[in-house]
Amino acid sequence: MSQKSYVAGSAYPPLENGVLRIYSMRFCPYAQRTRLVLQHKNIPHENVNVHLLKKPEWFLERNPFGLVPTLEINDKVIYESNICSQYLDDVYPGDKLTPSDPYQKARDQMLIDTFGKVIGHYYKVARHGEDLEDLKKSLKRYDEELAKRGKYFGGNDKPCLVDFALWPWFERFPLLEENGLKLTEAEFPNLLVWIKTMYQLPAVKATMFDKESHKRFVISYRAGNPDYDFGL
Amino acid sequence: MSQKSYVAGSAYPPLENGVLRIYSMRFCPYAQRTRLVLQHKNIPHENVNVHLLKKPEWFLERNPFGLVPTLEINDKVIYESNICSQYLDDVYPGDKLTPSDPYQKARDQMLIDTFGKVIGHYYKVARHGEDLEDLKKSLKRYDEELAKRGKYFGGNDKPCLVDFALWPWFERFPLLEENGLKLTEAEFPNLLVWIKTMYQLPAVKATMFDKESHKRFVISYRAGNPDYDFGL
Repeated sequence: MSQKSYVAGSAYPPLENGVLRIYSMRFCPYAQRTRLVLQHKNIPHENVNVHLLKKPEWFLERNPFGLVPTLEINDKVIYESNICSQYLDDVYPGDKLTPSDPYQKARDQMLIDTFGKVIGHYYKVARHGEDLEDLKKSLKRYDEELAKRGKYFGGNDKPCLVDFALWPWFERFPLLEENGLKLTEAEFPNLLVWIKTMYQLPAVKATMFDKESHKRFVISYRAGNPDYDFGL
Repeated sequence: MSQKSYVAGSAYPPLENGVLRIYSMRFCPYAQRTRLVLQHKNIPHENVNVHLLKKPEWFLERNPFGLVPTLEINDKVIYESNICSQYLDDVYPGDKLTPSDPYQKARDQMLIDTFGKVIGHYYKVARHGEDLEDLKKSLKRYDEELAKRGKYFGGNDKPCLVDFALWPWFERFPLLEENGLKLTEAEFPNLLVWIKTMYQLPAVKATMFDKESHKRFVISYRAGNPDYDFGL
């Protein structure tokens, strides 16, 4: 993770046969979803960070949308964070993160797909100080769901894809304290336990940044000059 | 499909044990995605149309987002069009619409998920006369993909979930002719063949409306008084 971002004009770093690569940006919550799965399942891989304002040509050739995460192995390219995570869970051994029961699978997918609403509110609170109540309301559903499921969205024993798809924004919620967001014991008892539990996971420890680092990145991003290599 | 829309204040139509129900709106392209799968796989079901501006309370209890399609069977509720379609394909017999190979599955999912960009452009062209070139550019990728895959996105023999997830907007593209959209043989040779092939499918015949009916619905919608029961 300590490699600085590749920029436009750089040479394509050769990919060895059979090696799985993730194209990432260290502070991107979407890329973190898939990096969490890579870590949790102990999947051997290499990490290539790309500069999202000066994208290497060879990156855009592989993913015309130019977004991270993107996975590459041999002649295969996969993008869209939830599709990347699902592919890794389908192909690699280790903890299964997807339920085999179709209804449970559908329920998990519903929690993941509709989390887009939480993300939408998150950025409105962060950028415009709007939507605070909507954000809390949209989070309530996840608290209620945890009450039914256990310590993790995957149950009491282990996390599932839902846990890893949601986590990156929870790691960033402390940034919204100055915008008035406070997850209280009274309103979000289950989410608060979940957050503590998640922080203990090796995968979270391996991919997380502390509040101050996130904040520094966001400040540079808003100033129009994102410091993708902050701290390196 | 000839049942008029249920509105707020109406009584919940009792659901028999073991019967699969879809909540729908006759002109909704998202609901059509799942109705196509129901038809194509010959899945016995009942259809309940709901009024999307005056939503029945019992509908909102089942899906707090209040969107169609929503599926209900016994104590199970499923929503989000692509999740509904996937659930039906997982659970019911008939043609398998999802590849068993994880990479092919990921590729199909990428085509479905990123079709959101086409849909975004579609509505900008329709509403504001903007984005015409972006719409065509975003469609080009689907034409190229068909060149590799065959008559359908599912190959030469049969459609797959991608075909049914994309189709509803292609059925509505003729509405954009007045906004300058014309899919030509020179630019979209494969999509044009696909459109003709799709129109032959019994599932498309069972769920489609002609251009004039779509147009009449859109006019009523834009006037602020959507005629969900047009033609009944």
